[in-house]
Amino acid sequence: MNLVGVDWGTSSLRVARIGADGFALEERSSERGILTVPPGGFAQVLQEEAGDWLAAPQALCLVSGMAGSRQGWQEAPYCTCPAAFDDVAHALAWIEPGRIALVPGLRYEFLGTPDAMRGEEVQVFGAMDLLGLADGVFVLPGTHCKWVRVAEGRVQSFATFMSGEFYRVLRQHSILARTMPEEDGPLQEEAFLRGVRHAQQARSLLHSAFSARMLALFGPLTPQELPSYLSGLVIGEELRSRALHGMEVVLIGAPALTERYALALRTLGCESRRLGSEAAWRGHWALARSLQQP
Amino acid sequence: MNLVGVDWGTSSLRVARIGADGFALEERSSERGILTVPPGGFAQVLQEEAGDWLAAPQALCLVSGMAGSRQGWQEAPYCTCPAAFDDVAHALAWIEPGRIALVPGLRYEFLGTPDAMRGEEVQVFGAMDLLGLADGVFVLPGTHCKWVRVAEGRVQSFATFMSGEFYRVLRQHSILARTMPEEDGPLQEEAFLRGVRHAQQARSLLHSAFSARMLALFGPLTPQELPSYLSGLVIGEELRSRALHGMEVVLIGAPALTERYALALRTLGCESRRLGSEAAWRGHWALARSLQQP
Repeated sequence: MNLVGVDWGTSSLRVARIGADGFALEERSSERGILTVPPGGFAQVLQEEAGDWLAAPQALCLVSGMAGSRQGWQEAPYCTCPAAFDDVAHALAWIEPGRIALVPGLRYEFLGTPDAMRGEEVQVFGAMDLLGLADGVFVLPGTHCKWVRVAEGRVQSFATFMSGEFYRVLRQHSILARTMPEEDGPLQEEAFLRGVRHAQQARSLLHSAFSARMLALFGPLTPQELPSYLSGLVIGEELRSRALHGMEVVLIGAPALTERYALALRTLGCESRRLGSEAAWRGHWALARSLQQP
Repeated sequence: MNLVGVDWGTSSLRVARIGADGFALEERSSERGILTVPPGGFAQVLQEEAGDWLAAPQALCLVSGMAGSRQGWQEAPYCTCPAAFDDVAHALAWIEPGRIALVPGLRYEFLGTPDAMRGEEVQVFGAMDLLGLADGVFVLPGTHCKWVRVAEGRVQSFATFMSGEFYRVLRQHSILARTMPEEDGPLQEEAFLRGVRHAQQARSLLHSAFSARMLALFGPLTPQELPSYLSGLVIGEELRSRALHGMEVVLIGAPALTERYALALRTLGCESRRLGSEAAWRGHWALARSLQQP
């Protein structure tokens, strides 16, 4: 079998040719997220990005992420939590039977309010497989960061934090933008951790965010330190709102982001392990393997 | 004496001719906030907006707000909390001695993080004078909402919440904008209160804000209800983060905004009294009166 994994998000598209060991042999990424794809254009874009791999004999292509949403290629209905790996594997939505399938997302409801994810579930199942874990807390930082609680091999619950998006809109569109440089520049660790710590004693980002303005006007923060400080406030607020109690978490995502979270967590007395794109490809590989078993 | 009160903020300018009883005889407002005034242009703008009133005999003009900041007409140094009315009255910064003065703002520092306000202190002192209060909690909703604690006639402490600004950037620039109509429309009370209540059980707006997306996608909220729901989430988060315990607060600000806060507070078991622009003018009047006393 020639397995092609596709992680098709809102603003980006990643594809990989996955080897027999579950690791990527080759990986490509582009900005062709689902928002850039014209209606009916998904097969064409996939062909352009991974057509050579799909032409191989016995090619199987599994697509996770927002491509399976109502705004995507075709809707792959959500699986409801608690959800096991098999629940997801049995609910693949086939575009071309035996050749191209969409992976369903997960849905969780708490006190009448739904939450949902698409794509992260494949990364979590992949991480569980890679690390040999059936229980744990998995954190997937990003525009909409997911906190996923796994017990007895099932995703029991999860929660979405709009941390990446809050950082972006505050940094670009609020009064805080006025005292910041055009570009973020490299992480200023001291300023970042000052933000993380300040967030622990605040009760809301609505209030703590204003300290970024005050410390810019009255010192001691320099314009170069402000983006890192704000990032620390946002990530620190996210961590404050979770009951960490020294728990260990698995971080999955882009290295620059998981590194920030790991740093913040360590400062708050929590250990973490970090995974990157290998988690997604291992998840696709595990799904493909399950299809071959009777 | 012919008293002219000026409340000169970042994005707006309000002027009033204030009568002997401390109430406005005439009021004007414009969009000529300090950000629109070219360097050195403040006297000219004031002349255009209130020149007829300033030409009266024995005219006295008191200017509060961001016009007294480094980015404004001239810097009027902050008074440090705890600060009494007299501390502010004695620290007026005269532009034209005996004729035009800037009112200083207040500064408060907590655990090494400064907070500051300009203009709201005049409204709080005015409200204290109007209501005969020497103690209380005063809330001034807006772009940067202020919570001001007064005891024994002094502003003991205050805290800034970027609630108005968070609402605006999330509503205009985040993913939440996608499921909302162009205009906010009238307040949808039920959706607003649903947001207020949801915020009480959330531990961070980073998470609760995502419910606005979920309830838009999966129901039951309609696009017309979403701005009200988001407003409820933001104001509800602000109230959650304060230790209300049934306290009574004085709300000062634009009626549409103080009405929302009063509604949210009542839902959480707190009574409030509401004041509008009369608080600012009463504050200017009290300052003017203090100048005439030896």
